[in-house]
Amino acid sequence: MEKKYVYFFGGGSAEGNRDMKDILGGKGANLAEMSGIGLPVPAGFTVSTNVCNLFTQEGNKIPAEVEEEIFQNLKKLETITQQQFGNKNNPLLLSVRSGAKFSMPGMMDTVLNLGLNDQTLEGLAQKTTNKRFAWDCYRRLIHMFGDVVLEIPKKKFEDILRKKKKENGIVNDFELTERSLTDLVTGYKELVKGETGKDFPQDVKEQLFLAISAVFKSWNNPRAKTYRRLNHIPDDLGTAVNVQLMVFGNTGEKSATGVGFTRNPATGKRELFGEYIVNAQGEDVVAGVRTPSPLKSLEIQMPDSYKELKDFTDRLEKHYSDMQDFEFTIQDDTLYMLQTRSGKRTGFAAIKIAVDMVEEGLIDQEKALMMVEPEALNQLLHPVFDAKVKENHDLLAKGLAASPGAAAGQVVFTAEEAVAGKKEGKRVILVRDETSPDDIHGMSAAQGILTATGGMTSHAAVVGRQMGKPAVVGCGDVNLNEEQKIFMIGEKKYSEGDWISIEGTLGEVLDGEIPTQPSEIMQVVRGEKNPEDSPMYERFFKFLSWADKTRKLKVRANADTPEDARIAVAFGAEGIGLARTEHMFFDKERLPFIKEMILSEAKKERKAAINKLLPFQKEDFYGLFKAMGDRPVTIRTLDPPLHEFLPRREDLMVELAVLKASQSDQKEKIQEREKLLERVKTLSEFNPMLGHRGCRLGVTYPEVIEMQASAIIEAVIQLTKEGEKVFPEIMIPLIGTREELFDQKKIVVRVAEELMEKYGIKIPYSVGTMIEIPRAAITAAEVAHEAEFFSFGTNDLTQTTYGVSRDDGAEFMAHYLTHGIWPDNPFETIDIPGVGELMKWAVEKGRQTRPDLKVGICGVHGGDPRSIVFCHKIGLNYVSCSAYQIPIARLAAAQVVLEEKRENG
Amino acid sequence: MEKKYVYFFGGGSAEGNRDMKDILGGKGANLAEMSGIGLPVPAGFTVSTNVCNLFTQEGNKIPAEVEEEIFQNLKKLETITQQQFGNKNNPLLLSVRSGAKFSMPGMMDTVLNLGLNDQTLEGLAQKTTNKRFAWDCYRRLIHMFGDVVLEIPKKKFEDILRKKKKENGIVNDFELTERSLTDLVTGYKELVKGETGKDFPQDVKEQLFLAISAVFKSWNNPRAKTYRRLNHIPDDLGTAVNVQLMVFGNTGEKSATGVGFTRNPATGKRELFGEYIVNAQGEDVVAGVRTPSPLKSLEIQMPDSYKELKDFTDRLEKHYSDMQDFEFTIQDDTLYMLQTRSGKRTGFAAIKIAVDMVEEGLIDQEKALMMVEPEALNQLLHPVFDAKVKENHDLLAKGLAASPGAAAGQVVFTAEEAVAGKKEGKRVILVRDETSPDDIHGMSAAQGILTATGGMTSHAAVVGRQMGKPAVVGCGDVNLNEEQKIFMIGEKKYSEGDWISIEGTLGEVLDGEIPTQPSEIMQVVRGEKNPEDSPMYERFFKFLSWADKTRKLKVRANADTPEDARIAVAFGAEGIGLARTEHMFFDKERLPFIKEMILSEAKKERKAAINKLLPFQKEDFYGLFKAMGDRPVTIRTLDPPLHEFLPRREDLMVELAVLKASQSDQKEKIQEREKLLERVKTLSEFNPMLGHRGCRLGVTYPEVIEMQASAIIEAVIQLTKEGEKVFPEIMIPLIGTREELFDQKKIVVRVAEELMEKYGIKIPYSVGTMIEIPRAAITAAEVAHEAEFFSFGTNDLTQTTYGVSRDDGAEFMAHYLTHGIWPDNPFETIDIPGVGELMKWAVEKGRQTRPDLKVGICGVHGGDPRSIVFCHKIGLNYVSCSAYQIPIARLAAAQVVLEEKRENG
Repeated sequence: MEKKYVYFFGGGSAEGNRDMKDILGGKGANLAEMSGIGLPVPAGFTVSTNVCNLFTQEGNKIPAEVEEEIFQNLKKLETITQQQFGNKNNPLLLSVRSGAKFSMPGMMDTVLNLGLNDQTLEGLAQKTTNKRFAWDCYRRLIHMFGDVVLEIPKKKFEDILRKKKKENGIVNDFELTERSLTDLVTGYKELVKGETGKDFPQDVKEQLFLAISAVFKSWNNPRAKTYRRLNHIPDDLGTAVNVQLMVFGNTGEKSATGVGFTRNPATGKRELFGEYIVNAQGEDVVAGVRTPSPLKSLEIQMPDSYKELKDFTDRLEKHYSDMQDFEFTIQDDTLYMLQTRSGKRTGFAAIKIAVDMVEEGLIDQEKALMMVEPEALNQLLHPVFDAKVKENHDLLAKGLAASPGAAAGQVVFTAEEAVAGKKEGKRVILVRDETSPDDIHGMSAAQGILTATGGMTSHAAVVGRQMGKPAVVGCGDVNLNEEQKIFMIGEKKYSEGDWISIEGTLGEVLDGEIPTQPSEIMQVVRGEKNPEDSPMYERFFKFLSWADKTRKLKVRANADTPEDARIAVAFGAEGIGLARTEHMFFDKERLPFIKEMILSEAKKERKAAINKLLPFQKEDFYGLFKAMGDRPVTIRTLDPPLHEFLPRREDLMVELAVLKASQSDQKEKIQEREKLLERVKTLSEFNPMLGHRGCRLGVTYPEVIEMQASAIIEAVIQLTKEGEKVFPEIMIPLIGTREELFDQKKIVVRVAEELMEKYGIKIPYSVGTMIEIPRAAITAAEVAHEAEFFSFGTNDLTQTTYGVSRDDGAEFMAHYLTHGIWPDNPFETIDIPGVGELMKWAVEKGRQTRPDLKVGICGVHGGDPRSIVFCHKIGLNYVSCSAYQIPIARLAAAQVVLEEKRENG
Repeated sequence: MEKKYVYFFGGGSAEGNRDMKDILGGKGANLAEMSGIGLPVPAGFTVSTNVCNLFTQEGNKIPAEVEEEIFQNLKKLETITQQQFGNKNNPLLLSVRSGAKFSMPGMMDTVLNLGLNDQTLEGLAQKTTNKRFAWDCYRRLIHMFGDVVLEIPKKKFEDILRKKKKENGIVNDFELTERSLTDLVTGYKELVKGETGKDFPQDVKEQLFLAISAVFKSWNNPRAKTYRRLNHIPDDLGTAVNVQLMVFGNTGEKSATGVGFTRNPATGKRELFGEYIVNAQGEDVVAGVRTPSPLKSLEIQMPDSYKELKDFTDRLEKHYSDMQDFEFTIQDDTLYMLQTRSGKRTGFAAIKIAVDMVEEGLIDQEKALMMVEPEALNQLLHPVFDAKVKENHDLLAKGLAASPGAAAGQVVFTAEEAVAGKKEGKRVILVRDETSPDDIHGMSAAQGILTATGGMTSHAAVVGRQMGKPAVVGCGDVNLNEEQKIFMIGEKKYSEGDWISIEGTLGEVLDGEIPTQPSEIMQVVRGEKNPEDSPMYERFFKFLSWADKTRKLKVRANADTPEDARIAVAFGAEGIGLARTEHMFFDKERLPFIKEMILSEAKKERKAAINKLLPFQKEDFYGLFKAMGDRPVTIRTLDPPLHEFLPRREDLMVELAVLKASQSDQKEKIQEREKLLERVKTLSEFNPMLGHRGCRLGVTYPEVIEMQASAIIEAVIQLTKEGEKVFPEIMIPLIGTREELFDQKKIVVRVAEELMEKYGIKIPYSVGTMIEIPRAAITAAEVAHEAEFFSFGTNDLTQTTYGVSRDDGAEFMAHYLTHGIWPDNPFETIDIPGVGELMKWAVEKGRQTRPDLKVGICGVHGGDPRSIVFCHKIGLNYVSCSAYQIPIARLAAAQVVLEEKRENG
């Protein structure tokens, strides 16, 4: 088969279709599809992504055979449009746009009005009898071409334009006279000559090939490359180039250009939603030169075009089975569709659209499940602004929605001010051009972060998400003067202490203090609102119930208290994957006993002290088991180093130094503190994370695990006697060798058998282990001889596999993420080539020894969608996450099944 | 083939031989061998190790078919000896001894005189016309049998014996009259009846089978099991049982029993060395009841027997091609050989014997290499007592040689006293019954450790070796009263402050203060002694040169200074595997600049500060390269966290608190300290080991690695211009991802190219990485794309793989080692199933990417023989260790080659 490089569309048919995104790019495939189903798309052709690689291979040259094919298609376009490219009487004008498989910032975007030169200009003017329009198109061409193809700084064109408007005393481009436009063309041409040493190309074919080449070249520019590396997009994917007949929204009052959505992308409501500008070209909408009107005005202004638009976009939504984001142009009352794609939407909208579309019969449940990004569910649980109050506050600007959540606070401009403000009990929003590692303490102190520059992977965005702080970044409308400590948005001036509110889910910056409140779903879950009064709640859980029918992974919660457990069950937890027992020790009533235990010098005293904790622990476990009913509950034995229960060493040292320096007569107190300090010093460690903790405590202080095992088993026995069914799973932390687990299991089994004997009752229980240090994973075949289950503690496993403490790494981690040394934060999503490799190995080796080994995960990654996909793929039985992440996990676990189904046909 | 369970020996032939240790055990195989080559071994038979497993499987019963075979062999023995087992006129008496493949404490050892009962006693008395002798044998039998077979506490027999001697006013056993001996038999019999409820068995076959069964049973006693677990001896190996005709060293003045060596085990001198006792049975020598005489006295006392013994043992040494440790008994002027095996020896002796035997033509060089344990070489480098002074000090006692080295100090009895003593500038020896984790600070403060109890794996032994402190443990002669703070050795009393000296290499405890001095070899290496004046030096390096001919692994040194490098070369280093650059920063002259750099707030200041270090670093590297000549030198870029260069946080906090409390007028000082504290707090980390260090510094502060790369390359350029050949290898530490290395390598390559351009010269250099965190090992295939070499940093790799900080783990690590949870200390010898698995993986994956990847190791394991064997097996190119361990490494690397040669036939 001969190779094909160029695909034609238009005139009611197309050589491509929507499934050909690999070779046509997203935009090209959708243009072909729309053409194919008979929508009015300006005719044109797509140069395929394959050419991009050839272009690079041949040293940035378009191969001759491709050139040939482009000319053939150009001919076809001329025939269909009855116009001729470069013909001075009847000139064909073109747009050139890039279009990769995935939308990608940093690449050359668009050149409009291509094909104009000093001659064709005249033809266009004559043909349209609109000289001003022709000159408007020509000055636009030279400006855009000069900027994106010839790489002349945009600002230089803008300076000329600004000067001209000032001369004429006008504000808006559309007020420019024909005369001014011709002057601009002259000025722009001089600029081009001055910058490049050459004239603006009058040969229209040269224009075309320079533009196509510029698109391909831009595929390899540094920003695009960085973006691909950060987003795992292969370099050899390439971009396509779309060459298309120009249609003009700027021919007069019967013309317009606009963008829209088939449903409301914020709420999900079924309505045509968008905006347009009369007598304008596409870039005017984006550039914000004029204020666009909402689409509903179009119904009044151009009722026929509106009706057609409504009809076309309804068809598109049905055809694509998803809410569409579209672009259109009306040229002299004729509507053209220029683009369609699935529309971005908020979590609220995503759920509503998915459920509505199933109910409307447009899609089935499985399709609905694939339409919602798991993390978007989070938005429905975050605190939100009080909607009624929000209405009364001005929306000041929109930036990138970098880290979700709503926050209000007083403006501060430095990290130090943020920290000081927090100390005074203030809520503050840190506003900066961009943040740096020096700002971390300030970011931590602030309610939210707003930056003027930077993208979704900037320092502020990365750290904001990491800290769970609402953040709006890259908000260009914020004009900041850091020295003077003011910023302007439009005409409004903000100084230190002024109130603003930010909505990180939407990227919104609002004026004043808007109070936040728990989300509607949280109100229902907490019993503060009636479920019947919340359609949102109903939709949310209906949607999740579809996920449950599909997924194979079980979903458990990390929960330490009966209250946590009840919320987890409300979110659909099928068990507890991690109950931390040490949290129970920090209670005011109990801390004295654990301190007593730690300060004991002999084993006997220690045992006596620890046994005072037994009734408390038993009560804890009783409550937890009771809340979870017959769902399994995994309890981890004592994990943190003992010094966490004592005062900090440096605090004691300072206290003592001061006591002594004061020369007051407090000998007894000094002695007591000295003794305490002595013990604290003995226990203190340089690297507590790698110290005497986890099972190492249980091995060296067996009385601790004895007490904990007794408390668990006694609670189970009591509940069993009360007629309940309880399934405790006792989990030993920080195992590195089989022998450690053997040692601890022996104690648990002995205690259990003694108690079952004592109470004359048999109860089920199992003993397993965390896999959270590399050696446990590597020797999993051995460990599985003792372990009835594994649970990956991916927090510690990531820390030890990377040799990085999450607490200490903040400074260099931000650098690593913003510079792409880490493509992702391994503490958020499982590092598949490193930590993941260990996990895979551990599952395989563990099941070789014990085929029915139950394996779960209880690190923070248990709530991360990409990690959940990985857990499914390596055959885990369950994931365990915070109660609030359970919906995410239910959906992600369903999606991976559907994805696999699709892949396997 | 029918199964064979019992092997006969004696009468000039044997069914077994020395190669059958697997089934005959060590003792049995050597008895057979000696019989086979015609030495006078009392006839007997060996019940094979296979029976041990059968015995356990059948519930501690000797299978009928084995019983049958034993009877057949007993018959044969009766025929050869012309005596009958149980015959009251001509009774055959037997010894029963255990004998596994490896000698193993904790198992039943020996029963002598078996076959005596009330009747055969009379026969023995009549036959030998020595009634006293017969009764002496009988009381010995009941005592030993009662103790080891019937498990009656030994002390109860000893109490009866002691009482009897007291009654008679005598001190020594041999002074007991016939009458006393008959009384003892009566007393012992009553004890047996009282303890077991049964009479002492009169049926001699019952005696025999009970004794054999007791040996097999003891294979599974807890002490033996623990020993096997700690020493990696499989449980199914089993022990053999040797049943042998009794010969008597206690028939009178023409009889004797003794032990000896064919060469001096302390010095290696060629001489018959040992001791004997006239008119005694074997256990008397061991028990120390009477003071034995040196073997040279035998030449005078029994010249014929001595001549024979000399002749036999010469033959044995030749036959076994190794120095032998033997046991013998002379019965009425007839010499019998009872045991032979390779003798244990000091490192000094090992080298001398090996070299001498090659020169005597007894063995070849390869055999010689296998005769010396690599770690024994260490002894020749440790400080030693001044031999002349030592002669004048009493040898007080001998214990187990738990941790090598010589030390003198004043006695202390508690860890607190040790610490206090050290503070006062005293040298102390910590003396305890046994040590526990609470004593660690005291052990650390002491010069050496002496304990009365505990074995080679006791806490004191383990921790002593770990700390490199001389230790003598399990020294039973030390009678300690910890409360009164005194100990007695014999009649001598020692109190706190008294001087003693201990020799951990030999297990010796000596009276008074013996000064230590560098070993002879160290004196030569340091140029303090002429090599020609040291035969020991000559032998040592001759021996090592044989190793060099065999080994495949290269051996490098870890060295930071030219002085270190020179010593390393003197020990045979073939390069530097690790030069740490941070040590160079701690120098008084340079520390201010590094502090200045750390306290800089802007990059420009930081760069200016760091560049002040450039001339110093260049000088450092120049010196190092020069010292190493054309050997490769691996330089690691900056590794430790920056706060290590600043004062400690808590010290500053205390200082400030005191400054403020004192209310003196030191505002400026307070401000300065506050500012410093602020920076220290910013830099301080909870877990510095997992923090901002290693390549993370170079990535975030590229000016640091730029400076270091410049210093290295400039030094190389200068030396190259001076006509030297230099091979620098620049090593980036703590890599976790390929991207980190890519980032750092880019900087090094840029700097190198700029400098080569500047100076107009090309120099060779390579860039590689440490593999010291698990992720680097797991993703080695990726990392090898950037790395030209790998060097395993097994210290950090072990810490992260285990999730254990070596500094912090001391408390639980001691528990883990003494309780066998860790069979070995992974920080001393590579943990093969865990860390080793990662290393193997990294080598394989790394070489898949880059087949000529050079791989080495530079952690402490590079000097551990077992680890070196592993490094050879997984295909490393070199090991790097401290200068003093180079001899060990050279030998271990040779031995593994010879071992493989042997295994592959």
